[in-house]
Amino acid sequence: MAGKLAISPLAPERFPQLPVIAGVEFATAEAGVRYADRTDVMLARLAPGSTVAGVFTRSATRSAPVLDCQAKIAEGADPEAGAAILVNSGNSNAFTGKAGDGSVSEICDAVSAAAGVPVSRVFTASTGVIGERLPHDRIIAKVEALVSSLDADAVESAAQAIRTTDTFPKGAGAVLETPSGTVRIAGIAKGSGMIAPDMATMLVYIFTDAAVPQPLLQKLLAGHTGVTFNAITVDGDTSTSDSLMLAATGQGGVTVEDADSLEGRAFSDALHGVMLDLAQQVVRDGEGASKFLEIRVTGAADDTQAKTIAMSIANSPLVKTAVAGEDPNWGRVVMAVGKSGAEADRDRLTIRFGDILVAENGWVAESYTEAAGAAYMKQPELVLSVDLGLGHGAFTAWTCDLTHGYISINADYRS
Amino acid sequence: MAGKLAISPLAPERFPQLPVIAGVEFATAEAGVRYADRTDVMLARLAPGSTVAGVFTRSATRSAPVLDCQAKIAEGADPEAGAAILVNSGNSNAFTGKAGDGSVSEICDAVSAAAGVPVSRVFTASTGVIGERLPHDRIIAKVEALVSSLDADAVESAAQAIRTTDTFPKGAGAVLETPSGTVRIAGIAKGSGMIAPDMATMLVYIFTDAAVPQPLLQKLLAGHTGVTFNAITVDGDTSTSDSLMLAATGQGGVTVEDADSLEGRAFSDALHGVMLDLAQQVVRDGEGASKFLEIRVTGAADDTQAKTIAMSIANSPLVKTAVAGEDPNWGRVVMAVGKSGAEADRDRLTIRFGDILVAENGWVAESYTEAAGAAYMKQPELVLSVDLGLGHGAFTAWTCDLTHGYISINADYRS
Repeated sequence: MAGKLAISPLAPERFPQLPVIAGVEFATAEAGVRYADRTDVMLARLAPGSTVAGVFTRSATRSAPVLDCQAKIAEGADPEAGAAILVNSGNSNAFTGKAGDGSVSEICDAVSAAAGVPVSRVFTASTGVIGERLPHDRIIAKVEALVSSLDADAVESAAQAIRTTDTFPKGAGAVLETPSGTVRIAGIAKGSGMIAPDMATMLVYIFTDAAVPQPLLQKLLAGHTGVTFNAITVDGDTSTSDSLMLAATGQGGVTVEDADSLEGRAFSDALHGVMLDLAQQVVRDGEGASKFLEIRVTGAADDTQAKTIAMSIANSPLVKTAVAGEDPNWGRVVMAVGKSGAEADRDRLTIRFGDILVAENGWVAESYTEAAGAAYMKQPELVLSVDLGLGHGAFTAWTCDLTHGYISINADYRS
Repeated sequence: MAGKLAISPLAPERFPQLPVIAGVEFATAEAGVRYADRTDVMLARLAPGSTVAGVFTRSATRSAPVLDCQAKIAEGADPEAGAAILVNSGNSNAFTGKAGDGSVSEICDAVSAAAGVPVSRVFTASTGVIGERLPHDRIIAKVEALVSSLDADAVESAAQAIRTTDTFPKGAGAVLETPSGTVRIAGIAKGSGMIAPDMATMLVYIFTDAAVPQPLLQKLLAGHTGVTFNAITVDGDTSTSDSLMLAATGQGGVTVEDADSLEGRAFSDALHGVMLDLAQQVVRDGEGASKFLEIRVTGAADDTQAKTIAMSIANSPLVKTAVAGEDPNWGRVVMAVGKSGAEADRDRLTIRFGDILVAENGWVAESYTEAAGAAYMKQPELVLSVDLGLGHGAFTAWTCDLTHGYISINADYRS
């Protein structure tokens, strides 16, 4: 399926050079879960001592693997045992009843035995079609081979294997110097449709060689989620499988124990950067996307109202189709502000496309020309700013346009 | 613009035969507001004694005519003066600043002078592009001619004139016998895009020859809105111009003063039927629609939760594209239930496509076959039922699919 799709015009030129994270190894295999002639299973093994944090979808119909991961993270087994993450693409094992729980259990048992980590430290994820039974035997048949081919350099292959309708593999990394040494962060992500405000991630795995206690790791991950993965949207739909995990192996020699220390701040900033980069790559690979859109809302009564308005604009089919048509139809932006339910005053709104002042004082700006707006809209990356003139609340969201490509991908075959 | 579009495959065969409402006359004209070679202005004059009720968009960026109508209905001028309604298509006079208010005022003055009703009883509406100044002089130039061509039989022409991207004119009516005589109801509507949960009407005008005091008229209109115009969605976007008005001329000889009388119940039922018929016609003319979809949610904790889930399904781009592709992708329905935020239990959900049991007990039903699901999806009118197994809350919503046609209409030119 993914192979049928042209690579997004907004894709980066190549997969980035990511730092190797000591204590993390990857392996991939072709298990034939649903796709033929491509890898569809990824195993990551984490060295003893690795702490693991996770943030998951809030959907009321969460998949079996998500429920299992949430329980294991809450339980908090001893990091000394190491950990493993196994992900398959093609089938989400969501809404598969008790059989789905059984599949998770059998996969975890097999990984535990082969990789030498306790079941309580095996995390799984499944992404793809909902409601079809996961053929877990095909995955289990590959577990031995996966373990025997683990490789610290195989992060790009891992990013490839977890794709569904993604048209390019997604990776981001950082190398930062701190007073106590170098810290490396590397992350991979998959996701292009069913991307919505709450936990817009699909699947994201980030690794660092810093030593970070689990509670701080969880706090940093959750803290940055609101302005990264929860600030993007493709279609307003929310997956049953969204999972975001962060593992710290502690093999790099730097310990981060206090968020307010120099090391803590540097690590937090770098982590935020990696998360934002991955989140924006998901938008750049939005199903059918031809434009990358940043929505900046300022001057709101508070940040929550700013987010409500930013997401109302970012999710509006009429705004997104106008962008697709390169139409500077700012009237649809006004509509989206108005329908959001957040506080707004028509006569205090200011709208800008890039640096172009489009509307102010309740009407089109005197200096605005349709020609300038139309020329701006031809760019592949657009910034749309709305100032409400009410207070100091602000929020920035990212989305893509809504094109014929989205309809083709989602109407023409089952993903 | 509207002329370029093929008629919706879900359109009724013809405009219905509507009863003539004594005390209501219509006229239309080609004012050239935006469209060429078609009527774009509609005037309705209501006889002295007519009461008028209205429900309007909740958008924070309401258009100038909406603000004016709301103020006039709240003010409640004497019905003995009669009333007039003037609607133009092509330009919404929304987000046009003080100039927009001035346009409304000038149009109202002209209609007042020509039609012989006080300004406080002249209601206007504008529908079309947002943010462009309304060329009100072109409308005012036609007012004398409109008044001199008023005709009680011209309701279909009125429905034609108020269209924007609508592919067919929308009308519905009822003739009911009550213990005290015959009551007639006739309504027209326009709307096909920017149709959302809150006030999904675009423009709707309903007339009756019953005599109904204004407070009761308002109560009946508002009471039926929740399960008719607020139960439909095309794209989740909300217009700045949505207006729903109901006028009672009292010229038919029947008085409805008590909602619980025989006359009151019969009138209320018939009004509900006319409103639902018009609301469903708006969905049938949803931009690019090829399928008409009824979403029935039952067994919810309460009606509000049922509505939240029904609208989450009805607004899901992934559900709507699956329907467009005739794919019985019930997994996307599960996703939409889960993302809604309403209470749901995966293992108690029951999903049906028409009479076909698709999923129960947290998984696909044993009796379900993909062939049966696929055959069902080929029909132009579909019923999708979700029972939550939690309580007695219920809600039914109506929507259409999301097709290439929607993208073409909204990306390829400005509406």
